[in-house]
Amino acid sequence: MRNNIVHSGAEELTYEIRGIVAVAETLESLGVKIFWENIGDPVAKGETIPAWIKEIVKQEIELDKSFGYCPTKGLLATREFIAAQRNKNGGAHITPDDILFFNGLGDAISKVYTNLNRETRVIGPSPAYSTHSSAEAAHADSAHITYSLLPEHDWLPDLDELRNRVKYNPAISGILIINPDNPTGMVYPKKTLEEIVAIAKEYDLFIISDEIYSNIVYEKEKMTPIADVIDGVPAIAMRGISKEFPWPGARCGWIEVYNKEKDPVFAKYVKSIVDAKMLEVCSTTLPQAVIPKIMSDPRYAKHLKERSAQYSGRAELAHAILKNVRGIIAPKPSGAFYMSVVFQNGALNERQTLAIENEKAKKFVEEKVSGFLPDKRFVYYLMAATGICVVPLSGFNSSLSGFRITLLESDEEKFKTIFETVAEKIKEYLASA
Amino acid sequence: MRNNIVHSGAEELTYEIRGIVAVAETLESLGVKIFWENIGDPVAKGETIPAWIKEIVKQEIELDKSFGYCPTKGLLATREFIAAQRNKNGGAHITPDDILFFNGLGDAISKVYTNLNRETRVIGPSPAYSTHSSAEAAHADSAHITYSLLPEHDWLPDLDELRNRVKYNPAISGILIINPDNPTGMVYPKKTLEEIVAIAKEYDLFIISDEIYSNIVYEKEKMTPIADVIDGVPAIAMRGISKEFPWPGARCGWIEVYNKEKDPVFAKYVKSIVDAKMLEVCSTTLPQAVIPKIMSDPRYAKHLKERSAQYSGRAELAHAILKNVRGIIAPKPSGAFYMSVVFQNGALNERQTLAIENEKAKKFVEEKVSGFLPDKRFVYYLMAATGICVVPLSGFNSSLSGFRITLLESDEEKFKTIFETVAEKIKEYLASA
Repeated sequence: MRNNIVHSGAEELTYEIRGIVAVAETLESLGVKIFWENIGDPVAKGETIPAWIKEIVKQEIELDKSFGYCPTKGLLATREFIAAQRNKNGGAHITPDDILFFNGLGDAISKVYTNLNRETRVIGPSPAYSTHSSAEAAHADSAHITYSLLPEHDWLPDLDELRNRVKYNPAISGILIINPDNPTGMVYPKKTLEEIVAIAKEYDLFIISDEIYSNIVYEKEKMTPIADVIDGVPAIAMRGISKEFPWPGARCGWIEVYNKEKDPVFAKYVKSIVDAKMLEVCSTTLPQAVIPKIMSDPRYAKHLKERSAQYSGRAELAHAILKNVRGIIAPKPSGAFYMSVVFQNGALNERQTLAIENEKAKKFVEEKVSGFLPDKRFVYYLMAATGICVVPLSGFNSSLSGFRITLLESDEEKFKTIFETVAEKIKEYLASA
Repeated sequence: MRNNIVHSGAEELTYEIRGIVAVAETLESLGVKIFWENIGDPVAKGETIPAWIKEIVKQEIELDKSFGYCPTKGLLATREFIAAQRNKNGGAHITPDDILFFNGLGDAISKVYTNLNRETRVIGPSPAYSTHSSAEAAHADSAHITYSLLPEHDWLPDLDELRNRVKYNPAISGILIINPDNPTGMVYPKKTLEEIVAIAKEYDLFIISDEIYSNIVYEKEKMTPIADVIDGVPAIAMRGISKEFPWPGARCGWIEVYNKEKDPVFAKYVKSIVDAKMLEVCSTTLPQAVIPKIMSDPRYAKHLKERSAQYSGRAELAHAILKNVRGIIAPKPSGAFYMSVVFQNGALNERQTLAIENEKAKKFVEEKVSGFLPDKRFVYYLMAATGICVVPLSGFNSSLSGFRITLLESDEEKFKTIFETVAEKIKEYLASA
């Protein structure tokens, strides 16, 4: 190649949630049975799609138009349905024109950061969901800027730190929140959101609120959509069907834009996102087409309630198993289907190990872990010793040592065994050196 | 907003194919019946999806796994199927690992240019399919660099110009071809492709070949995939199901990477595209899942053959109607389902008009067209006078004046009437001043 064609931000594109898969596959090929607790796909973990949802999708396929393109912003009837739902709650009022569909939130996140001015920054939580933090870092060709979520305070954000970073870094133009949060399962209290909105208002920023898990909250009343408290601040909320139906393979999510008319620069930025989507013509049609039918079906609310109750029960169980293990902090999640476990300062060292029965797996891991961050070292040992695949917290743009584990295993006995094994192996690892 | 958050490349994000829709909708609201000949969606234009294809999709929906995520690169079985198909033809040999699925080629195109080093350029044909040219321009924050397709030579590329641009502009690192071409319907002869490959080899460039229409060619033997002539040159071919099944709303396309191992910089660039896709987890699962079943069905080849024959017949008819109209060049397409018509130099001026019966439409257009490029002026008059919505060629990054019209109208009488009306209105417009 006569030039170096590689983008200078290419090194920022890391995604440990999938990166760990290659390691797990290698261990699998060496004879280790893998328990996939790394990725947030309920379907892969054995959840079934209700027959009535499948039936609605099949009926839609009978119509030729479900195969065609849809408008760039998305099917109008679906946007009307969503706008009506949003406006029912009070708070921000939107029209169908304030909604823009994407091929899943991954696509939305990519467009939102790619279309920002290269000098401008969005501050996000740490630990961070890597799709946000990596895309923001790649956009700026520089490390993502973060505010801390505090494990010793049930993962609530450090608002003083957020305010100071905003105050002292004039490049910051937006604040990202993920509510309910991935990877921690924390749900932002209303008061916290109000304080973040106040910071945005004071420093003339916009807000991005990723609410993909907004209907997976264990105590429903605890979830406050940003729309409810946004006041006049320009904002983008992100929602989708991946985790709800669940239909992650549909690649169907949308953004809702609040207070576009309040800021002409924000309006121009939103237009550039629409223009970028227009270049790709439109997003997936079929999943959009079934949204109103499925979401307005009386069985839908029940479906969501039952699923949230399941995760809530598993969160209780996981917390009960891990809460008394010494050397870690394991706050109980309030939403989504993840739990993040943090090792206390100084708990880990580079001499700790686990007994690994499989000789080849032992050799593979021992050769790999030299120079690793402490939590990645633990994760590799855990996987080789037990087959349990989790994601190190350092892969979530965090300086904390720990790991994220999903609450998705649908076989209750198996779920219990997995968490008991994790607890036991943490003890064994910490005691080993 | 305390900073200007708008990306400096935002102005490059233009897509007249959809941009013209807003104008048509306004005219529609004023009482003009619109004939949508602007967009390449066979479904919207009345083509039906064969029942056997729908049946295969519905069977797949019965399986829960079709709702889940798939691997980042795409379902392995589907990539194996595609690699085997490619390797059957000779030419470039690929493995499933050389295939990467996207949410349609719009997504692929966006990722391919976004992940290029900002200083590096890809030269493309002019007229250009705007998704490529705008995305490339936005990536570089600078106008797209092009080589000419020549209407007086049946839209074949000007290879001398291509060679000189490559020679004298060291920022150019890649050459884009669209084969069959959109918007012209031209199919690159094998010899032309070999010469382009030779230029790429001489100047150490890579090639992007968008082959989304590769199975819509009127004389099948005329289509040469870039894989057949690529030799050792690094290249990316783009393919998908949008135009073939047709299932544009599926957002399912893929890239095939050739000769990755021949150039470490190219390999690193391809890895960065995979990493960017990994941030979004994966692309649409369901359409990928049905690809092997549909494409290996004995009815599929027949389906494609029948559709190509239809377009071929329409191309003949359109060409017969337009070829003797004075003042234009209207080469007969050989593939895809578009025809591009060019006004000869000096044929257009800013005083020409068409009679418009609808008074409101007349007023709307007359107020709009002042200062317009000449072909855009004609397109607005044509639409207001007849309802026929086509896209000005100037919207395809071209200095030629003309328009693109689709060959998708499936009602034969209506098709004939549309083209006869266009011919008549061209004459009327050119004679008007």
